[in-house]
Amino acid sequence: MVKNIVLTGGNRGIGLGLVKELLKNDKVDKLFATTRDAAKSPELQSISDPRLVIVEMNADCDSSIAKAVEQIGKSVGASGVDILINNAGVLYAVDINAPIDRKGAAKNFEVNCVATMAVTFAFKDLLKAAAKASGSAQVVNISSELGSISLTWGPCAPRHFTAYSMSKAALNMYTKTISMDWKADGIRATSVHPGWVKTDMGTDAADLTVEESTSNMADMICKFGEANNGLFYNWKFEPLTW
Amino acid sequence: MVKNIVLTGGNRGIGLGLVKELLKNDKVDKLFATTRDAAKSPELQSISDPRLVIVEMNADCDSSIAKAVEQIGKSVGASGVDILINNAGVLYAVDINAPIDRKGAAKNFEVNCVATMAVTFAFKDLLKAAAKASGSAQVVNISSELGSISLTWGPCAPRHFTAYSMSKAALNMYTKTISMDWKADGIRATSVHPGWVKTDMGTDAADLTVEESTSNMADMICKFGEANNGLFYNWKFEPLTW
Ligand SMILES: NC(=O)c1ccc[n+]([C@@H]2O[C@H](COP(=O)([O-])OP(=O)(O)OC[C@H]3O[C@@H](n4cnc5c(N)ncnc54)[C@H](OP(=O)(O)O)[C@@H]3O)[C@@H](O)[C@H]2O)c1
Ligand SMILES: NC(=O)c1ccc[n+]([C@@H]2O[C@H](COP(=O)([O-])OP(=O)(O)OC[C@H]3O[C@@H](n4cnc5c(N)ncnc54)[C@H](OP(=O)(O)O)[C@@H]3O)[C@@H](O)[C@H]2O)c1
Repeated sequence: MVKNIVLTGGNRGIGLGLVKELLKNDKVDKLFATTRDAAKSPELQSISDPRLVIVEMNADCDSSIAKAVEQIGKSVGASGVDILINNAGVLYAVDINAPIDRKGAAKNFEVNCVATMAVTFAFKDLLKAAAKASGSAQVVNISSELGSISLTWGPCAPRHFTAYSMSKAALNMYTKTISMDWKADGIRATSVHPGWVKTDMGTDAADLTVEESTSNMADMICKFGEANNGLFYNWKFEPLTW
Repeated sequence: MVKNIVLTGGNRGIGLGLVKELLKNDKVDKLFATTRDAAKSPELQSISDPRLVIVEMNADCDSSIAKAVEQIGKSVGASGVDILINNAGVLYAVDINAPIDRKGAAKNFEVNCVATMAVTFAFKDLLKAAAKASGSAQVVNISSELGSISLTWGPCAPRHFTAYSMSKAALNMYTKTISMDWKADGIRATSVHPGWVKTDMGTDAADLTVEESTSNMADMICKFGEANNGLFYNWKFEPLTW
């Protein structure tokens, strides 16, 4: 029942990989991939699938979000947005064993949490429309295993990632909250850990290629149903604890 | 083995209650209660116990923190700080079903997370000194049940508290991280939920009086040992899940 999908941060890394994998699914009607600068997204531009629509959006800017929502709303009409994938994110390293870089620490929260909340609320009406048209809609928040408090491996984990980890734990709280609060509107929410992936953020040292991560993840995301609402999974569809 | 304690936000609410209760414990040598404005803290000023030292500190300001650390360091000398209680916190309400108030949402993270990280690192050397002198030191982060992702009760919880809840989930991640990362230095960390308490933040509708919450909590905090490192408890010393 997959139809219209919106994915943020589609121009590189995991987002770009998800675009390619999602387009392999013929149940996808339209895939709106957002990027901050379409002119500087050559890889995204080079994908020649008529279902792909490139939309400019800066998640830090409300007017930019509003413009993207308007453009996408016009395109999908009453069928709305079935899946919103909040993939855009940042990792600002902060050493917790040195005077705290307050601005760097705050940046993790501003983008990974606050901007995601702003984007998600801005798409709420289109998600509700899809739920009305076809029974349900799904928010997917790309989180991280580093955001699992129970699974944190402390001293082994690079402690410079603590502020990032904290922001992903906070994002998981947002997932859980809207999974309950928006249930009556037919909107579900699920957190996903993509694995440690070779991207600008994940570095070349990572375990997985973008394709290994996103081929599984794209499949999983399209299968999410009521049983997966308010939960947290890795790219292999294994449940993770908070 | 309780000796020197530092508590932030000691001028009102739960912090003031903790000051009163902690002073009932004769194992407490010195209690440093911080406030942003000593002149505007009449209740704290009225407590006439020679072990209480009122220290001015604004957790949002690094130079203010540095001054407080210097003053406390001079007073405790080589015995250091045995317990740091990060109680100062804010609740900025943010409606998640309206265009997101980015500044208000960010405020929750800036104070409850980033300022707490800054304060805690600033006291790290004094905590290490205490651990060296007496075997261990303890960080207590006053969190909230609203910060437990697993216990969130969604639509019933006032959804305006979502950004606050997210910040407390993030704070719990900080607790867990330093509980592992600072273990080698003899420093432990534990998150505490004080209950729903009648304070400016908790409002008069809350379940518990400040005394009911803090009498139990003060006792518990002074009993924290290795077995409580990296965990989360309510004021009744019952474990909470993340
Ligand atoms: N790579 C990993 O190992 C890994 C592991 C766990 C979780 N994750 C998560 O997976 C997601 C994607 O990560 P990645 O590895 O693909 O990272 P990446 O290569 O650094 O790409 C990040 C993407 O997010 C976009 N973005 C960042 N801030 C934005 C903003 N304010 N507005 C709009 N777009 C913004 C970037 O756009 P620009 O090109 O314009 O900067 C880019 O498209 C993130 O949420 C990340 O936390 C990654
Ligand atoms: N009350 C509840 O039901 C409840 C439940 C769960 C958790 N908590 C947590 O318990 C802690 C205490 O809450 P409360 O109910 O006592 O709140 P409160 O009555 O609003 O008092 C908050 C305290 O934090 C201080 N503070 C806030 N921002 C600060 C900053 N930037 N620098 C220094 N001090 C700052 C305040 O100082 P000023 O007087 O200068 O503003 C005040 O002393 C908080 O962390 C709160 O999140 C409370």
